[in-house]
Amino acid sequence: MEFKEIVEKRYAVKKFDKKVIPENKIEELLEIIRLSASSFGLQPYKIKIVDDQETKEKLLPASWNQPQINTCSHLMVFCANINVKEQIEKYEEMMESAGIPLENIKAYTGVMKGFEEGLSDDKKLSWATKQTYLAVGNAINGATSLGFDSCPMEGFSPEEYSKILDLPENTHPVTVVTLGYAADEPRPKIRYSKKDLFF
Amino acid sequence: MEFKEIVEKRYAVKKFDKKVIPENKIEELLEIIRLSASSFGLQPYKIKIVDDQETKEKLLPASWNQPQINTCSHLMVFCANINVKEQIEKYEEMMESAGIPLENIKAYTGVMKGFEEGLSDDKKLSWATKQTYLAVGNAINGATSLGFDSCPMEGFSPEEYSKILDLPENTHPVTVVTLGYAADEPRPKIRYSKKDLFF
Repeated sequence: MEFKEIVEKRYAVKKFDKKVIPENKIEELLEIIRLSASSFGLQPYKIKIVDDQETKEKLLPASWNQPQINTCSHLMVFCANINVKEQIEKYEEMMESAGIPLENIKAYTGVMKGFEEGLSDDKKLSWATKQTYLAVGNAINGATSLGFDSCPMEGFSPEEYSKILDLPENTHPVTVVTLGYAADEPRPKIRYSKKDLFF
Repeated sequence: MEFKEIVEKRYAVKKFDKKVIPENKIEELLEIIRLSASSFGLQPYKIKIVDDQETKEKLLPASWNQPQINTCSHLMVFCANINVKEQIEKYEEMMESAGIPLENIKAYTGVMKGFEEGLSDDKKLSWATKQTYLAVGNAINGATSLGFDSCPMEGFSPEEYSKILDLPENTHPVTVVTLGYAADEPRPKIRYSKKDLFF
């Protein structure tokens, strides 16, 4: 499917039919998300995958009882990860494994480290959140490309999600992407004109 | 091209060859961006398109002299737009034009208005910025799908951009996407493992 068709076809599903997405399709989606763009390539996020019904039911009241939560096949909780230092250390190891000359590694990680040191925790969170949304975009377009549907959701309680899912320290849930097969029909797309958006 | 190939192929170009992207291709890209997902469908952003060399040269020092700026064909400045009230009013008009029953329009815009009223300007900016990144994602994947290249860039001075481009009040530049044809080669992709990102 051409990318243009994907963005035309994708819509925010209001209700899924509970059918389960095959595991190999989920694996393909993870690969698409893994290849997302991010600032410095640091991908400052962790993504919690929920596929058991019991946990989905627990998350439902923490998500304004929206029916996507307990009718979806899989639910991904995209969490901004402000352990940036740790991400840089891992990145350094990956560069070493890729056989990149030590001098280049030092130059690149030097820039990253300087950037990290200049950021307060609040700024880290806002920067990490932005990168997370690039991954969210790949997730929802990726779902359509693989033949299933999705709904990105901001309407939930990050505090309750953190408790219910026992999320690690320094990971902040910013978006939930529910995945499955639609049990509703897309409504006509309402979009601003090019004139409204571009200048 | 399948979406998976797009995300595999896309990379952040360091230098373009100055060749100009045909206007019809740019129009196709705008359509792809216009169809981006956003919270409530409100697309709280404005995108400034720069295609003249003189302006690119002016932006260069405000962008740490990165060579993408003055070697690209087109440059898009993605600005978060915190005139959310105005966006809601326009959305209401679009729903009316689409023939949606008045009752449904009132219910939907009521929720949007309640949301907007609860937000400080700072929160509006952070919410609008997140939506903007979904559009950035479509821009860079869209470029690859249409046969040209891109580089999303956060390394620039929003204040100087606002001045040079005389950006309207309440629009805050958050990312620049440079577009063109690569004059460099992609380096091997370095990415965290699934184990590092998903849990």
